[in-house]
Amino acid sequence: MADHSLLTPADPKLSRAAAQRLSQYLRSLGTGTGGTVSSVDLSAAVGVSAAQVRRDLAVLGHLGQRGVGYDAAGLRTAIRRKLGLDRRWRAVLVGVGNLARALLRHRGFTEQGFDIVGLFDTDEAKVGRVVDRLTVEPVSALREGVARLDAELGVLTVPSEPAQAVAELLARAGVKGILNFAPVVLKLPAGVKQVTVDLAIQFEQLAFAVVDPGGRVGE
Amino acid sequence: MADHSLLTPADPKLSRAAAQRLSQYLRSLGTGTGGTVSSVDLSAAVGVSAAQVRRDLAVLGHLGQRGVGYDAAGLRTAIRRKLGLDRRWRAVLVGVGNLARALLRHRGFTEQGFDIVGLFDTDEAKVGRVVDRLTVEPVSALREGVARLDAELGVLTVPSEPAQAVAELLARAGVKGILNFAPVVLKLPAGVKQVTVDLAIQFEQLAFAVVDPGGRVGE
Repeated sequence: MADHSLLTPADPKLSRAAAQRLSQYLRSLGTGTGGTVSSVDLSAAVGVSAAQVRRDLAVLGHLGQRGVGYDAAGLRTAIRRKLGLDRRWRAVLVGVGNLARALLRHRGFTEQGFDIVGLFDTDEAKVGRVVDRLTVEPVSALREGVARLDAELGVLTVPSEPAQAVAELLARAGVKGILNFAPVVLKLPAGVKQVTVDLAIQFEQLAFAVVDPGGRVGE
Repeated sequence: MADHSLLTPADPKLSRAAAQRLSQYLRSLGTGTGGTVSSVDLSAAVGVSAAQVRRDLAVLGHLGQRGVGYDAAGLRTAIRRKLGLDRRWRAVLVGVGNLARALLRHRGFTEQGFDIVGLFDTDEAKVGRVVDRLTVEPVSALREGVARLDAELGVLTVPSEPAQAVAELLARAGVKGILNFAPVVLKLPAGVKQVTVDLAIQFEQLAFAVVDPGGRVGE
């Protein structure tokens, strides 16, 4: 509700790139100690122009003052509200391998409001094991588990082959969004969102930054 | 050289978002069997408008024919050349934990031309272990190792605290780019590029897609 109150229907929707930049501004504000921050500070921290910073922050309302800057605490609150981070999110994870273990130890998730509250795997040998204080459950328990754990998001850390089938189970179990680490685009029912983290694409972007030193990537 | 030949100095540099979309088009072409592909096909696979696809591909030259589409093989070659993927890249990895093990098993890296050829860790207990056919070496051997292994890229999978110091070692060892999984922005000498993969940001983008269902993220 509140996060839309500043927008009229005519306002352009935030693009994916703009939403990512909001996340990056938030991250760079997180290390500050309050006070004010200028568009130039944020520009340096995130690697875009100060004009771009001002355009991005304009969608949040009139928080900046010319010559003074933005109130850091107010900006942090406004970005968190816009991105849906003014609350906690509960997620179940499917596919308890090395990547899952790395994610479970990722302090940043909890800090930013994301709690992985249940683990599931198709491998019978993994069911019953305790990983990071959670007991791995069978995928057959996913539907009941998502309801019991009151989870809205799913994290998919299975290989490419079973990814679509497991994603459908997650969707049927009622999750509203899937963070997908399998390098496939999932076909999901309307109303279930996905963000795919394709790690090879990140490597490609680095290669591009190296071969194209004048470009705007990676600096 | 060749990848710049189509561009005049007046051409705009590819934005980070555009370079990422080229990666995504490439991924979606990878599953095809040749023949032709239309901007509408690519648009559906990547989730942007067909007009955006045509603008993005225009920087590659005149590969499309109205009413016919793009030659898939030619497009694949042109994108790979533009992104610096018309060659293989050798990378060393520092920080051999769960995330590193997950990355080493990521088939996509090798398929896209990235070979992790050396492993390094600050933890003496890990030095000498064999992981995925590579023997873990001490970080003190990094400088000599990067030269011996002829590596141009570094993958940083250490925690936040040592990330900056290890990145500096990688830079001094001569890598040209760092794929950074620590949630910090590295300060690097000019000429050393970085791409930071902040996994919490991906989670945030998913939350935003769920709270902002009319938005352009995640579909």
